[in-house]
Amino acid sequence: MKTLITGGTGFVGLNVAEELLRGGEDVILFSDSELMAYALQKLSALPGTLKTVRADIADRAAVDAAFAEHQPDRVVHAAVITAGEQRELRDFDRIIDVNIKGTGHVLSAAAKHGARRVVYVSSGSAYGLALLDGTTVSEETPPQPDTLYSITKFASERLCARVRWLRGLDVVCARLGSVFGPWERDAGVRDMLSLPFQIVRLAMAGEEVILPRREARRDWIYSRDVAAGIVALLYADALRYDVYNVAAGTGWPRFAENLCSRLRPIFPTLRYRISSADEAPNVSFLGDRDRSMMSVERLSSDTGFRPTFDHGKAFDDYVAWLGGNRDYYDTRRR
Amino acid sequence: MKTLITGGTGFVGLNVAEELLRGGEDVILFSDSELMAYALQKLSALPGTLKTVRADIADRAAVDAAFAEHQPDRVVHAAVITAGEQRELRDFDRIIDVNIKGTGHVLSAAAKHGARRVVYVSSGSAYGLALLDGTTVSEETPPQPDTLYSITKFASERLCARVRWLRGLDVVCARLGSVFGPWERDAGVRDMLSLPFQIVRLAMAGEEVILPRREARRDWIYSRDVAAGIVALLYADALRYDVYNVAAGTGWPRFAENLCSRLRPIFPTLRYRISSADEAPNVSFLGDRDRSMMSVERLSSDTGFRPTFDHGKAFDDYVAWLGGNRDYYDTRRR
Repeated sequence: MKTLITGGTGFVGLNVAEELLRGGEDVILFSDSELMAYALQKLSALPGTLKTVRADIADRAAVDAAFAEHQPDRVVHAAVITAGEQRELRDFDRIIDVNIKGTGHVLSAAAKHGARRVVYVSSGSAYGLALLDGTTVSEETPPQPDTLYSITKFASERLCARVRWLRGLDVVCARLGSVFGPWERDAGVRDMLSLPFQIVRLAMAGEEVILPRREARRDWIYSRDVAAGIVALLYADALRYDVYNVAAGTGWPRFAENLCSRLRPIFPTLRYRISSADEAPNVSFLGDRDRSMMSVERLSSDTGFRPTFDHGKAFDDYVAWLGGNRDYYDTRRR
Repeated sequence: MKTLITGGTGFVGLNVAEELLRGGEDVILFSDSELMAYALQKLSALPGTLKTVRADIADRAAVDAAFAEHQPDRVVHAAVITAGEQRELRDFDRIIDVNIKGTGHVLSAAAKHGARRVVYVSSGSAYGLALLDGTTVSEETPPQPDTLYSITKFASERLCARVRWLRGLDVVCARLGSVFGPWERDAGVRDMLSLPFQIVRLAMAGEEVILPRREARRDWIYSRDVAAGIVALLYADALRYDVYNVAAGTGWPRFAENLCSRLRPIFPTLRYRISSADEAPNVSFLGDRDRSMMSVERLSSDTGFRPTFDHGKAFDDYVAWLGGNRDYYDTRRR
């Protein structure tokens, strides 16, 4: 089986690629940025075969040409600009080009070239304000997109449903929880690095981590579980719905402190503390407000997949990965 | 007061322009197509002053330049491509450029140049599938965008809310019902002409009108009421919400037949009948399914405005307008 992954050199894209390559699949990474030599070497050592296409998702002809050349059976569409406030004001046109037009181009090429299934990598952000009600959201919860990122994710989901309807394309959307884990790095293109990676970055720089006094509730999911969930959607026989949450479905209490304490083996000099009353933390949960948990009942009942990484297992695995792959994420090393 | 209207040479834009010019206002029509000499002459005879800017809404710099030059106090953003299925497959990129980027450009320029209020002309289509439940939708009903047009209208509404939040712009969205009335014509740019205008077009061509056997329920609103509703939103002191339905809020039974019977004075040879069992009608309600009515309680309570044109009054006014303005809408005359 051949799977084309857009945003293939990004955080989620690489996790999916690794999962598929481990299983001996053919993977084509489509990205506008070059795959780092380190990652290329690591992924090339896995059983599957790896190809890369360097092109811009906003370029319709380039997307079509990649599909024409590689004829993927399956597609994971993860290319997106995860813009924060400043970037959304500054780069509005480019964000629309990548996040909305890019989705249209991929869906269109997938339909034209006969892809058997497309998984669109959406986000819990598609729920927008509906994710802030503090309870648990299911895929039936009506989204209220708020940020530009959120607006473009929800619009892209609806484009998927539209192309499914108009052209019979088998496409399904995966709404991810708050992802952390292997292959995250600061390449300067994502405005919103996960809290764990913010901590790792400070640890690398030898700076003290000052945690927020209050832990904002997030539905954390480990990136290997994200990859496994996406692959489950990519291969499930028949899917009854067009949207599936891919999250842990539960909160992880004292997430930040627990992670810091586990990071000691690879960052022996790591110092961390809770901020004092009048002091600003130097890491953030990307928003102060609690977010709702995301029910994974639908994913579990339709694919049989449930996330397997809890708190302890995820942190241990991540720490082991960090220890073994410093050449990838430590930007000071290059 | 100076009002800039995007999509200013279009159906809704011209109705709003006429309403404002009658009240002695300054109006700037922003459009990528030229205002027909006939309409220019008619509108120029009204008390207000009229200017036109010919530029593309998808061109950020051109939009900004128009705002810089004219410094409008108020803005009505009506520019859009109303695409049917074929066009949405064919012109996807251009539709995104106009319907989403265009909205971003207008909001951005309005915020930068200090516009006091923007009304975004949205559509009942933003409700998408939620408009098909057969009951009455209010602005609290969660939208489920379906077509590309619907997806872009809802995304644009959320952009309005976003720019209001980020930049303090006073912007409100008007979700229109099924509009018909003066200034509609077949300029080849709208895929979805209203049922009344489809009938007028056949009448002009001397063709028999074959009506669908079943009348699909629509919340019809007369274009002069649309204009008055938009102007009410443009001038209301304080608006409590960011979205308002602008519709009649009620169905008009036997709409098509009643209209046909009223059109006789200006189209004396008009023939019409209900299609027989195995015959296709030659006019359409743009979809067979009934649509929900759109509650106008919010509009009424916050602006004091309620539509004043019922069935009879609207048809009489439209017939009078058609009789007096054939040079505008009759494309065979040019």
